[in-house]
Amino acid sequence: MSKDKQFVKEITPQGEDFSRWYIDVIKKADLMDYSPVRGCIVFKPEGYEIWELMQRELDAKFKETGHRNAYFPLFIPESFFQKEKEHVEGFNPELPWVTEAAGEKLEERLAIRPTSETMIGHMYAKWIQSYRDLPLLVNQWANVVRWEKRTLPFLRTSEFLWQEGHTAHETEEEAREETMRMLDIYRAFVEDFLSIPVIVGQKTPSEKFAGARDTYSIEAMMKDGRAVQAGTSHYMGTNFAEAFDIKFLDRDNQLQFAHTTSWGVSTRLIGALIMVHGDDRGLNLPPKVAPTQLIMIPIGPAKTREQVVAKADELYAELKAAGIRVRIDDRTDQSPGWKFNEYEMRGVPLRLEIGPRDMENGQVVLVSRHSGEKRIVQQDRLIEEVRTMLDDIQKQMYEDAKSFMQDNFKSVDTLDEMRGMMEQKRGFVLAGWCGSDACEHTVKEETGATSRNIPFEVSEHKSQCLVCEENAKHTVVFARAY
Amino acid sequence: MSKDKQFVKEITPQGEDFSRWYIDVIKKADLMDYSPVRGCIVFKPEGYEIWELMQRELDAKFKETGHRNAYFPLFIPESFFQKEKEHVEGFNPELPWVTEAAGEKLEERLAIRPTSETMIGHMYAKWIQSYRDLPLLVNQWANVVRWEKRTLPFLRTSEFLWQEGHTAHETEEEAREETMRMLDIYRAFVEDFLSIPVIVGQKTPSEKFAGARDTYSIEAMMKDGRAVQAGTSHYMGTNFAEAFDIKFLDRDNQLQFAHTTSWGVSTRLIGALIMVHGDDRGLNLPPKVAPTQLIMIPIGPAKTREQVVAKADELYAELKAAGIRVRIDDRTDQSPGWKFNEYEMRGVPLRLEIGPRDMENGQVVLVSRHSGEKRIVQQDRLIEEVRTMLDDIQKQMYEDAKSFMQDNFKSVDTLDEMRGMMEQKRGFVLAGWCGSDACEHTVKEETGATSRNIPFEVSEHKSQCLVCEENAKHTVVFARAY
Repeated sequence: MSKDKQFVKEITPQGEDFSRWYIDVIKKADLMDYSPVRGCIVFKPEGYEIWELMQRELDAKFKETGHRNAYFPLFIPESFFQKEKEHVEGFNPELPWVTEAAGEKLEERLAIRPTSETMIGHMYAKWIQSYRDLPLLVNQWANVVRWEKRTLPFLRTSEFLWQEGHTAHETEEEAREETMRMLDIYRAFVEDFLSIPVIVGQKTPSEKFAGARDTYSIEAMMKDGRAVQAGTSHYMGTNFAEAFDIKFLDRDNQLQFAHTTSWGVSTRLIGALIMVHGDDRGLNLPPKVAPTQLIMIPIGPAKTREQVVAKADELYAELKAAGIRVRIDDRTDQSPGWKFNEYEMRGVPLRLEIGPRDMENGQVVLVSRHSGEKRIVQQDRLIEEVRTMLDDIQKQMYEDAKSFMQDNFKSVDTLDEMRGMMEQKRGFVLAGWCGSDACEHTVKEETGATSRNIPFEVSEHKSQCLVCEENAKHTVVFARAY
Repeated sequence: MSKDKQFVKEITPQGEDFSRWYIDVIKKADLMDYSPVRGCIVFKPEGYEIWELMQRELDAKFKETGHRNAYFPLFIPESFFQKEKEHVEGFNPELPWVTEAAGEKLEERLAIRPTSETMIGHMYAKWIQSYRDLPLLVNQWANVVRWEKRTLPFLRTSEFLWQEGHTAHETEEEAREETMRMLDIYRAFVEDFLSIPVIVGQKTPSEKFAGARDTYSIEAMMKDGRAVQAGTSHYMGTNFAEAFDIKFLDRDNQLQFAHTTSWGVSTRLIGALIMVHGDDRGLNLPPKVAPTQLIMIPIGPAKTREQVVAKADELYAELKAAGIRVRIDDRTDQSPGWKFNEYEMRGVPLRLEIGPRDMENGQVVLVSRHSGEKRIVQQDRLIEEVRTMLDDIQKQMYEDAKSFMQDNFKSVDTLDEMRGMMEQKRGFVLAGWCGSDACEHTVKEETGATSRNIPFEVSEHKSQCLVCEENAKHTVVFARAY
């Protein structure tokens, strides 16, 4: 047991140092490694497989709603960024530039894409002539680069993986519908698939996407009370259409600018997943996004081992055939206790133990990583019981994350009150805001928190701005954010 | 009919100008568009979906054989390329360089990856300590960049998409087994899934991958007789292990260099697919890789239209539920004749026609894009018949491509004979080769053809080098290549 305890101790407790806990977990669970390029990480198989599961689920949702995938160039000519004023101001400071290729200096510098509105805008202008070409509903899975000063694995890296949807529509109404449809797909995905509750709302003007008319986001609360923006959906108005000349002949034969949207989620969701559900024992994955959903561990003395392993193999084959992502660990050079800790640390949601006594009784033991709950189940009902328990864990993880968020969500009336709260304990704050950039800026200066969004649904409407005490125009969620 | 004819005429006939035919087809079938960045294309949804189908199939094969996906950085520090001498010589002339980022000049230039042996070698050196860490079986799906002087959509573009497998092993024997296993996975995939017959063999030293000990390839013949290298698998020996210090403690506690492999296929397979199967009517896709396998076209006069479309919708739902990739075109603003041409041009393998007479007889008409064969089938046996016909088309396309390759495969004894053949008609040439770089070079200079590979299986072994007339060491396939 001393070896087991020591093992667990290698992860810094969350309460001692949350940042160190995070790094310890992602390293020990083998999700990533640092690369020799500043700010870029290697997604190791255990981490990448989480992303593959997210991709598969989201990609199906995009296709169900009529989107198709395409692929646009990595390189964006410098002149393209000049075409939309806010966009260039927003992204210019973070761009890496290719200036030479094949031994020659380029005539025009090429940026590595930080996002593809400009390139796609250029192409859409060629492809869209008539209302018959609309709506144009395209998504891209790609790598993007933003040269970040301070990086954190998964949550903020210079290169990351994401999807970016880009659509063009005849009318503002349709484009706004699309913006909301995709925001809701993200909300449902993050809540149902990742068991992460989110606050859905609109970004304030200072926090919106560079070049968007309106930006909407879903915001999740990490276990240290800080926020992660888990997905965004933007209504661009005709900003990019005007910058790139995306025009079409409408039903009345009039030339109109298209209304465009874009929306994206990225590998930062992996970081959110870890920080929302992880604990002092390590990673804790919701079943739907767990590369291994069930780990089987045969136990008991050497003399019954062969028999137990044979039975375990038989059950393994049944579970696999039923579509459960199952693995078996029948190594003899590690103790069951070591294995229990190992797979808890790796966040495998469900453990199956089978020993000689279980054999006699035709049963197995199932143990939840999340709650520790044990269920003794009959072998002939195993698949059903595993499915039920995985479902229960998925829901329970959502409920627990939701309770945590509610417990750390406070309504405040004044900046002093908020400052006090941010000093003791981080969390989300609901407060009134007059709508001025100045007051929003003051909040950031004084508390380190930024406006996350203006939620669509709030428990109460605040009447007064927490800074200037004028009438509140909006009720806003503020938090420190990753 | 004049409209239909004119439409078809927009594709240049293959016999008139094969290169123009190719560009006409990919543009008209809406597979790609040129981008504003030199040598980079946009993969439009119709083209990208072909790649998605290839990815899904290959990814499953890689996983079945124990590989897992990971993701490594896009950027490679300049110093990494210096570590393997042949590698830097091979790739340096094609690299684009990032020299500035976020407003500052970088201390060390970063290449955009042309392939990832160096970065992955660096990481593997950290990850591999003991024989217990081996074999390490990783694959990456990624974009790569090689700044090409002459580009051709899909077949040679500055940025392209691919997968690159990278594995490390304890022994030469195991690494060689892996190299051959992956080569055979490619062969089976290209032959069975893309209906493209290939020549499997080993590259000559002058044509092998920069840094590899041995390179193996599969080579396909296009309809103009030129070759496309459709996939490669490399045994690296310990070259990269020595360059990047990938060492492990073996079973006898001795420090050893790992033996590594790499293997890849890319979006150039889309180009090969088009050039192997396409014809003067346009694209021609084998069913397994066709985004749309079956197009349904309701026909007949307005008075029976509603009834016919209702029946078509019912059959559509059945086909879709059975997993057939089916679409229905019930537009009334285009004639059936126009639609027939349109979907033939787009390469949809199977067409279903249903009209009032078919309704009466409880039947439909199925027409093969590839052979023009018509089958009248009963509606209650539709799914079965569609599956059979798709299978038949898949096989027929392979057989026809194989006959074409055989017809254009000639054995020659002398350079004169080969020169003559290359002048009249392109094709593959089987010839003896003494093994000297000089003779290989002479062939290229005199005929424009390069050695494609030394096939594992040949119809005859040539005894004499076609250039110097010394004893032949190998029997080689030569061809002009894309």
